Amino acid sequence: MLNFTVGPVMSSEAVRAVGAEQVPYFRTPEFSEVMFENERLVKQFAKAGENARVCFMTGSGTASMEAAVINVFDAQDKVLVVDGGSFGHRFAELLEIHEIPHEVIRPAFGQGVTAEQLAAYDGRGFTGFLVNLDETSVGVLYDIGLISDFCRRNGIFLVVDSISSFLCDPFDMEALDVQVMITGSQKALACPPGISLVVLSEKAVERVYGKKPKTMYLDLKLALKNGERGQTPFTPAVGTLRQINCRLREIEASGGVDAEVARIGGLARYFRGKLTEYSLPFRIVSASLPNAVTPLSPTGGVSANDIFITLKDEYGIWVCPNGGELKDTVFRVGHIGALEEKDFDTLLGAFRDMMSRGLL
Amino acid sequence: MLNFTVGPVMSSEAVRAVGAEQVPYFRTPEFSEVMFENERLVKQFAKAGENARVCFMTGSGTASMEAAVINVFDAQDKVLVVDGGSFGHRFAELLEIHEIPHEVIRPAFGQGVTAEQLAAYDGRGFTGFLVNLDETSVGVLYDIGLISDFCRRNGIFLVVDSISSFLCDPFDMEALDVQVMITGSQKALACPPGISLVVLSEKAVERVYGKKPKTMYLDLKLALKNGERGQTPFTPAVGTLRQINCRLREIEASGGVDAEVARIGGLARYFRGKLTEYSLPFRIVSASLPNAVTPLSPTGGVSANDIFITLKDEYGIWVCPNGGELKDTVFRVGHIGALEEKDFDTLLGAFRDMMSRGLL
Repeated sequence: MLNFTVGPVMSSEAVRAVGAEQVPYFRTPEFSEVMFENERLVKQFAKAGENARVCFMTGSGTASMEAAVINVFDAQDKVLVVDGGSFGHRFAELLEIHEIPHEVIRPAFGQGVTAEQLAAYDGRGFTGFLVNLDETSVGVLYDIGLISDFCRRNGIFLVVDSISSFLCDPFDMEALDVQVMITGSQKALACPPGISLVVLSEKAVERVYGKKPKTMYLDLKLALKNGERGQTPFTPAVGTLRQINCRLREIEASGGVDAEVARIGGLARYFRGKLTEYSLPFRIVSASLPNAVTPLSPTGGVSANDIFITLKDEYGIWVCPNGGELKDTVFRVGHIGALEEKDFDTLLGAFRDMMSRGLL
Repeated sequence: MLNFTVGPVMSSEAVRAVGAEQVPYFRTPEFSEVMFENERLVKQFAKAGENARVCFMTGSGTASMEAAVINVFDAQDKVLVVDGGSFGHRFAELLEIHEIPHEVIRPAFGQGVTAEQLAAYDGRGFTGFLVNLDETSVGVLYDIGLISDFCRRNGIFLVVDSISSFLCDPFDMEALDVQVMITGSQKALACPPGISLVVLSEKAVERVYGKKPKTMYLDLKLALKNGERGQTPFTPAVGTLRQINCRLREIEASGGVDAEVARIGGLARYFRGKLTEYSLPFRIVSASLPNAVTPLSPTGGVSANDIFITLKDEYGIWVCPNGGELKDTVFRVGHIGALEEKDFDTLLGAFRDMMSRGLL
């Protein structure tokens, strides 16, 4: 199967080879070295600064979203959250569950957050801001520069979920005054799912040490303390952490984060250009495209979900379906993972074949 | 490296081959089938009964320990917890963090819980009981029959952490009136770490649906609901879940849970017999041995941790060190994972070689 979903994505040969190895015992200096290198490279690629720290959580991205929320905010905060799709909505639900006061910005479908929308919240006492940089569910990349400016002028603590944006779109954690950045193993890191990461600025580390969330598993203090010796508080997904190490080294050897962002951006442009060139019957539904994914709505009256099923069952190709009310109107094509232009040619060939069969 | 730790352990060739495969997209009927089969086989091997359910959590064993505690108990409960080592202590800490009233039974080092100890808690209004069936940190298997009787006669809801005992020691969830059983992917399931499992009896499922823990990630209701269609609420460790499927099928093909328990028990007896036969300078420190592990204390004045290091660095063998105050006095030899008698011969040969070198 050729995989154009937004995760799990395809892994490189080297990463897969690590997946075939026996998982080593991990309470050793040898494994600590792997973890130290992982932390160093993630900080470097996030441009997080020397004093930042990285917590490697064994869990889905949502584990790190919840950990971030409960380790840096509490009932004394007033948080502004962008709810522009299912992942933004999840942040809002987390704030609700943990009884953290908040208000919600709801951008129009397929649209980013505007300067005018943000200006309406100036000087209203907000202390925190939560945003999914790439709201993957609808393929919208928010303007992080705009959000960063808003947070800076209001003295707001900025938490960014970069799960689908890390390594895909330009990002400079330190320059943007982002205090917490979240990502996951199965997006542009192109490893199996099972690990999510929380990058904390120096200021965020201080804040975490001052909070007492009612949790053991998601308590970032434990991750930070154990991380000082290259370890985790509980048995982590050791195999996946070793695959992450392999992949981070691959990225470093290929020119680092800027080269990787350029590579993925190039694939996104290639695919989008061909969509027009071949006059495929799709409309791009996002006005602010991320590099990781292109959200498409069929214009020929065919169900988006039927396209997903036909590609899967008849062409050996996965694209990414949507759930809920977008099920029949939007599907997505990812540009992350071990993909090359020729793979997109295969997908485009399948689309053209479906057209000739009257299926698009 | 030859791995005799208690996790991560060595995996079979077939499980490793799955680790080398691309991780598939998972919101598909194909992956749901894998999950349904996983649930069916885990229930069968736990002897959990037709109406039990299994939640597959992407996380360490501690994630499922915390999930179990907060999804079945609350401030109205009064829980008795066996704290006989670091894992029992973790349960006590979880009860503390979540402000669930509790009392602690502390067995003597290396000892199980006795009928007399339990009798002291009869009729004292306890509503819950928490125990790590195999307290792996010290290699003590508690008498689940005794505990089950105590819970039955007091009408107590019994939660058992079987992380290191599942597939190793005889266990019948339904016959023992165990309501919740926890296990993990990296013990006798012999897959990479990253997935822990919570098996819920019908009564436990009902109880979970009646509780509102303040968490999203560890809310078992979400896992149960999504599990009805063979799915998980958040992107799980899809690769590990496919490896678990491979391994469960292996066990089924080799005669099921009883055959696997017999196999691991046979290896434990083989190793323990040879320890005596070769007069190795170790004392077994547990009076109630589980099949998964043999805890050994060196009698020749050598540090247990030094033995771990020598075996690792000079013989290519991992045994399982202890942390904390047992660091120098106890190490452990596991009998789980893809191990055969000849592997134990290798380990025993290394011990004898170390003796001849004056290192034991």
